[in-house]
Amino acid sequence: MLVDRLLLGPGPSNPYPEASQGLSQPLLGHLDPEFLTLLDETNDRLRTVWGTQNPRTLPLSGTGSIGMEAAFANTVRPGDVVVIAVNGLFGERMVDVAGRYGAEVVRVDHDWGRPIDVQRVLDAHPRPRLVGAVHAETSTGVRSDIGSLARAVHERDDAALVLADCVTSIAGIPVEIDEWGVDLAYAGTQKCIGVAPGLAPFTVSERAWHSRVASPPTWYLDLGLIGNYVSGTEGGARVYHHTAPTAMIASLHAGLGRILDEGLGEVYARHASAGQRLADGLRAMGLELFAAEGHRLPELTTVCVPDGVDSAKVRTQLLEEYGIEIGAGVGPYAASVWRIGLMGHNARLDRAEAVLGALAKVLGR
Amino acid sequence: MLVDRLLLGPGPSNPYPEASQGLSQPLLGHLDPEFLTLLDETNDRLRTVWGTQNPRTLPLSGTGSIGMEAAFANTVRPGDVVVIAVNGLFGERMVDVAGRYGAEVVRVDHDWGRPIDVQRVLDAHPRPRLVGAVHAETSTGVRSDIGSLARAVHERDDAALVLADCVTSIAGIPVEIDEWGVDLAYAGTQKCIGVAPGLAPFTVSERAWHSRVASPPTWYLDLGLIGNYVSGTEGGARVYHHTAPTAMIASLHAGLGRILDEGLGEVYARHASAGQRLADGLRAMGLELFAAEGHRLPELTTVCVPDGVDSAKVRTQLLEEYGIEIGAGVGPYAASVWRIGLMGHNARLDRAEAVLGALAKVLGR
Repeated sequence: MLVDRLLLGPGPSNPYPEASQGLSQPLLGHLDPEFLTLLDETNDRLRTVWGTQNPRTLPLSGTGSIGMEAAFANTVRPGDVVVIAVNGLFGERMVDVAGRYGAEVVRVDHDWGRPIDVQRVLDAHPRPRLVGAVHAETSTGVRSDIGSLARAVHERDDAALVLADCVTSIAGIPVEIDEWGVDLAYAGTQKCIGVAPGLAPFTVSERAWHSRVASPPTWYLDLGLIGNYVSGTEGGARVYHHTAPTAMIASLHAGLGRILDEGLGEVYARHASAGQRLADGLRAMGLELFAAEGHRLPELTTVCVPDGVDSAKVRTQLLEEYGIEIGAGVGPYAASVWRIGLMGHNARLDRAEAVLGALAKVLGR
Repeated sequence: MLVDRLLLGPGPSNPYPEASQGLSQPLLGHLDPEFLTLLDETNDRLRTVWGTQNPRTLPLSGTGSIGMEAAFANTVRPGDVVVIAVNGLFGERMVDVAGRYGAEVVRVDHDWGRPIDVQRVLDAHPRPRLVGAVHAETSTGVRSDIGSLARAVHERDDAALVLADCVTSIAGIPVEIDEWGVDLAYAGTQKCIGVAPGLAPFTVSERAWHSRVASPPTWYLDLGLIGNYVSGTEGGARVYHHTAPTAMIASLHAGLGRILDEGLGEVYARHASAGQRLADGLRAMGLELFAAEGHRLPELTTVCVPDGVDSAKVRTQLLEEYGIEIGAGVGPYAASVWRIGLMGHNARLDRAEAVLGALAKVLGR
């Protein structure tokens, strides 16, 4: 018997039906002209969703975190100063990854559950090579103002690069890479894009592209080599690098097609209204939201576990009795916060009602 | 209109029907107990196909080449001597990757199309940290004797590690990691395993595991962190690392299930007989095989393009008129060799007849 869950954790979410169809289409080879056309279209669709004209926009062959790794591997040389705004797990992860590539990391810590403070990040170092921050912190459900950060960084120093983690924001809330002036950004497919996990949409500004590390320590994530396959060499020919995950890319193509057919504005509005209903319902149940008011993500709501309630037991009951997956908290909040996602195909009022109803029953409220 | 190809190049091949079914099952979360059971079973099945008891056996979240990268990233420290047997593109790639991680690489070049010479590899350096070689060279269709290499290396120096690229051999010809004494090996899913591209089955001996680099330069491929998720920590708990590509792993689980239901011996015999029929048919057509006799892979046959024939034009005609994909050659043999794969679900006599018939028509033979 196949297990069919309602995936309302921090991702993966249940894919859009179009994405599932794309995944089960006949498989194409990675050098087939039909596939290369599909890849080009996928990258065009990604550009629309990212809000960018960057020619270097593509899905990397790994899950979201591989995008973070590719960003640092291709831009940071040992000794480069990298400022990281940390307000949750994924900021922490940036610190770890940047350090492995030899960066001199200046971390700017914030309380978890709060957005980043642009001025503090700016004041942390006068001339960093790169400033990294998370747009939508998956660990806390908080949105930070990446546009203000990027503008402030570039106003001071045109050569500094700005890196944004958009894993949980892309296709759920507006992302405007070019308008904001973000140089590198990565995402995942398994959240608001509504596709299974396995790819990391990635985009690089021309400025970052031309200042990248010539031969990064990683072969698999060498953007120059990947670019020769995805966009072709200077001479125009496409050169094989690694076997692209063609089924996953066909699914991404289809999922993005669905999003653009519906319209990005409509998709954002659907996330906003589902998230609002969930937040209202949780508060009506007497529960306290974790993320700072005014900075809450509609696609991922964090809620405090009530005193005396066993967090894991509630999650298990939701899973076993209702087939609903919600997420635990992370790090210091592992047992005291739940994370409830209404992402992509699940950004719907019926999903909000389902989890609100089930949670009310389980909590006896 | 969906394009449906017969994928008879060097991979991807058309998936086993069971693998396609697995890919379209309802998606599970990466921390769902149901998924973790499926992951455990997948790793058990991989152990059987690898011929190993290694507890550290798992699918890495990327395509085959990510396995190569993980192997070097987790074992090689700057200055370590690494001997690489090069008899094709994937040996070349090992040299590139090992060098990026700071290895002092000693390469032992062989003619492309020939197997590796164990004694020459052994003589290249008296005390290397690691010796790497490709079991089945995807670029040339040649099998090398990894068992003899591994035994010889370990007889001389018990501490040296042996790394084998099994991307094109696994589940097509016998692979015996433990019997041979291989310490690290990686594969891909898109060839004889008969699953879409996107995962790299990987196995590590306990000896290699315990001598690995404590904090490798890569976060995504840090085997210690990945192991904490896949196998659990010392305390037994599984710790989140990155979001596993759950749809692809469900597909791998199903594809491996199909292979083990059929029986590994039967699967190898099926590859052998389909490959033999293809080789016989090509010779009967007056074509010359490229790989050295006695060392040819049944799952991937390399054939010389006849004088005066335009290699690319023939491939295009096969693709457009017959819907059959075959591969070009690689590097110096790009225009003078074709690569025809009968892998996984395509290791069948009907596929051999289809490509032989189509090729005869196109070549007018």
